[in-house]
Amino acid sequence: MLCRTGQAHICENVKIIGVDCDGAFAEFIAMPEYNVWKLDPAIPDEFAAVFDPLGNAVHTVMEAGVSTKSVVITGVGSIGLMAIPVARAAGAASVYAIDVNPGKLELARRLGADETFDARTPGLVDEIKRRTGGDGVEVLLEMSGSGSAIDMGLQMVRNGGTASLLGIPSDTVNINLAERIIFKGLRVLGINGRKMFETWYQTQALVKSGRVDLRPIITHVLPFRDFDHAFALMRSGEAAKIVLDVKGDLAS
Amino acid sequence: MLCRTGQAHICENVKIIGVDCDGAFAEFIAMPEYNVWKLDPAIPDEFAAVFDPLGNAVHTVMEAGVSTKSVVITGVGSIGLMAIPVARAAGAASVYAIDVNPGKLELARRLGADETFDARTPGLVDEIKRRTGGDGVEVLLEMSGSGSAIDMGLQMVRNGGTASLLGIPSDTVNINLAERIIFKGLRVLGINGRKMFETWYQTQALVKSGRVDLRPIITHVLPFRDFDHAFALMRSGEAAKIVLDVKGDLAS
Amino acid sequence: MLCRTGQAHICENVKIIGVDCDGAFAEFIAMPEYNVWKLDPAIPDEFAAVFDPLGNAVHTVMEAGVSTKSVVITGVGSIGLMAIPVARAAGAASVYAIDVNPGKLELARRLGADETFDARTPGLVDEIKRRTGGDGVEVLLEMSGSGSAIDMGLQMVRNGGTASLLGIPSDTVNINLAERIIFKGLRVLGINGRKMFETWYQTQALVKSGRVDLRPIITHVLPFRDFDHAFALMRSGEAAKIVLDVKGDLAS
Amino acid sequence: MLCRTGQAHICENVKIIGVDCDGAFAEFIAMPEYNVWKLDPAIPDEFAAVFDPLGNAVHTVMEAGVSTKSVVITGVGSIGLMAIPVARAAGAASVYAIDVNPGKLELARRLGADETFDARTPGLVDEIKRRTGGDGVEVLLEMSGSGSAIDMGLQMVRNGGTASLLGIPSDTVNINLAERIIFKGLRVLGINGRKMFETWYQTQALVKSGRVDLRPIITHVLPFRDFDHAFALMRSGEAAKIVLDVKGDLAS
Repeated sequence: MLCRTGQAHICENVKIIGVDCDGAFAEFIAMPEYNVWKLDPAIPDEFAAVFDPLGNAVHTVMEAGVSTKSVVITGVGSIGLMAIPVARAAGAASVYAIDVNPGKLELARRLGADETFDARTPGLVDEIKRRTGGDGVEVLLEMSGSGSAIDMGLQMVRNGGTASLLGIPSDTVNINLAERIIFKGLRVLGINGRKMFETWYQTQALVKSGRVDLRPIITHVLPFRDFDHAFALMRSGEAAKIVLDVKGDLAS
Repeated sequence: MLCRTGQAHICENVKIIGVDCDGAFAEFIAMPEYNVWKLDPAIPDEFAAVFDPLGNAVHTVMEAGVSTKSVVITGVGSIGLMAIPVARAAGAASVYAIDVNPGKLELARRLGADETFDARTPGLVDEIKRRTGGDGVEVLLEMSGSGSAIDMGLQMVRNGGTASLLGIPSDTVNINLAERIIFKGLRVLGINGRKMFETWYQTQALVKSGRVDLRPIITHVLPFRDFDHAFALMRSGEAAKIVLDVKGDLAS
Repeated sequence: MLCRTGQAHICENVKIIGVDCDGAFAEFIAMPEYNVWKLDPAIPDEFAAVFDPLGNAVHTVMEAGVSTKSVVITGVGSIGLMAIPVARAAGAASVYAIDVNPGKLELARRLGADETFDARTPGLVDEIKRRTGGDGVEVLLEMSGSGSAIDMGLQMVRNGGTASLLGIPSDTVNINLAERIIFKGLRVLGINGRKMFETWYQTQALVKSGRVDLRPIITHVLPFRDFDHAFALMRSGEAAKIVLDVKGDLAS
Repeated sequence: MLCRTGQAHICENVKIIGVDCDGAFAEFIAMPEYNVWKLDPAIPDEFAAVFDPLGNAVHTVMEAGVSTKSVVITGVGSIGLMAIPVARAAGAASVYAIDVNPGKLELARRLGADETFDARTPGLVDEIKRRTGGDGVEVLLEMSGSGSAIDMGLQMVRNGGTASLLGIPSDTVNINLAERIIFKGLRVLGINGRKMFETWYQTQALVKSGRVDLRPIITHVLPFRDFDHAFALMRSGEAAKIVLDVKGDLAS
């Protein structure tokens, strides 16, 4: 039913490439024609390679609705970083980014965050409230999957605000539902994947118009044969997104 | 700010009668004129006496949006019971009520629940899914405040559905956010109090038109002097709502 | 783009059966598999035969949102009549039906309209306002396509209300935009066809549960060979929906 | 009722200053305390003087919802001009401005319009469609009140799009409801005044943050005693907004 009403992303029978079947490292992959998205040729291949996580960022931002609103992003891994220019393009009034990785926070600033904070700063909830007239932000975009970040993020949202949860906790999370959600009248949205195909249209338009510039996020472009080096870079936390260029290798 | 934009119920400075100041057992009570609601004289005094919890039920149902939808109510104390005729009047396609108190479940049926279930029935999540085409209900109205009921209720909601949380847990709750909310793309709404004054207009209209009949919920009307007996009845779980009639006592 | 985002009904390239190609009187009809709706076997064939206009009624009602609201329907031809039980099932607080055909108004009452009015009654706008606390209705469902009915209907809607327009005027309509729409802060929705496939799921659920009973609308079931008689009945205005039964004829 | 549910701007009993009672040229004006908006001291007096029309622009833009969307504005008088930076700040993907006054179109470009068009250009509807992938814009902000501009603007909106109508026609308007609104599944919103007080919070935040810069719109600041000259300038169409400075005059 969800597949036929624009909600295919949460269909019970959805099969995710790379999760429920072989992913993009397979030599060949068979896709239903219906699922293929023909990218606008104006979009460079490097950007196309990261459309999957970018779609997550767009979906999270657009479901929350950030137009003229103050926004906190908890967790600026690749998707959290992408959410910064997306939120800006969608009209966010202010974007605060929180993480523990100084390199990622530096990237967050380059991508347009108004301010960035180390998640371990004492009194950070009050700090964010001070910057938003004492009330807290209108929107939380949770992209860390960390239980403590979720709790902190929910505290930062003002009464009547919205929290979009994309980050996936590895375990159950202990939540003070009364204080964090019920008394505050929050709206909490679980975000999964991307909307087929609404998110793709939005994503393509944002990139094509130049309003979302992905260059600072693609920290490295390496030839495909250097994949070992690329994975090491990813594990080190030094890279945001690494694009492996298969063209040169295939030609040789 | 919330006070001036139709969101006074979640204003940071809200003062709740009986919580933040003396309540309805005080001999006199001073209220700002702005807060007084002049009840339509067509509404009987007995019903007026329970407008406070009825407003909670109306708020919870209307925020979720139940028109043509399948609904589970977890916890049919007074507010949960009231939510049944409210959901019916608002267009719910089906209403399933869950509790552990057989008397309350009996009342739930009289108030219009399609089916009622003991919360301890093994396989209850699957049972509810079977009744809703395998997918689960579209709306959960959580009115128990019990951690296990919240977890069970969230499992009963289909992907893309809505959960309105009104029941207040006495402690933190351990939630599998990934499986219960994020992957399913749920919308979870914290519900606090009533909307000033939107909820009152809706509540009054529902009662005045006869579409919400409160008589089965007011299980006892006692003279005010019998308040000891009334409290004992409430504690026993045998009563739903008891109205204390002050008129006879004041006259004598 | 609209076809891929749950909005196929307003796709620029939509082809309507019976409008853009041969319709249901053709001996054979070729349909893309994607478009075929497999009806639940619990739904009688007579009802299945009128799902097309019923879907229009469901779409119009659900887009407007009628839960706990007062509703006026201008024009109770087949679709307007169907909208009455649909609006009731969706939680409308009150339904007023307006037409010039006394037979249709009689049917409207049988289908659950609270009150019915001849459109030519002097002072009808004030009459409707009196029944709705002086403010007017919250929702107009316009199903006549008549310019004067549209103007009258818009006058009946209260400030901040909603008008869903389904009826198709044969000519341009002269509208006092300032008084009827702008100063009142109305929301006016153009309704076309049915949502693919959201409307079908809703429609099927409403009929299957018995909450929408189509029997009063199907005023005649005739053998297929009597189609001349059937068309004459339709033209006379005496019939609402006539189902032609092909089974008997095909067998003979 | 509307006054108590955040909809005071369309209350039946609303009294507009300068319309229903003496306006801002009166020497003294009595206001209910409830209505007074205490402006943030960070906002310059010149900007405060034009908050009334700016609130109209913000209300129109925010009701439509422009985040990541393409927008046409028909009519760039003062409010239409203000709507340009407001729409940009709220996340519009593109803003096209249409008028017949070349000076206003020049101002529109300075305020951030992507492109401006003389309303009399032949083939303008097709021109706008070409710029939006053939489909037309997602949002029309109608601020001219001209019947022919309304008709043209509605043609420019894509199926499923939104039209916010603020401009007040001096007469009834002849509309092809079928082609312009119904078949296209448009959502048409009548916009009146400003939301009390939601619009004021949004407006103040947009100006205070610098995202909406009103300087290009305030084409003249004149001493109060030069009001004759100021009115002549306004009538000539050469000025957008003129601020009369009373401070100097009062001091002398």
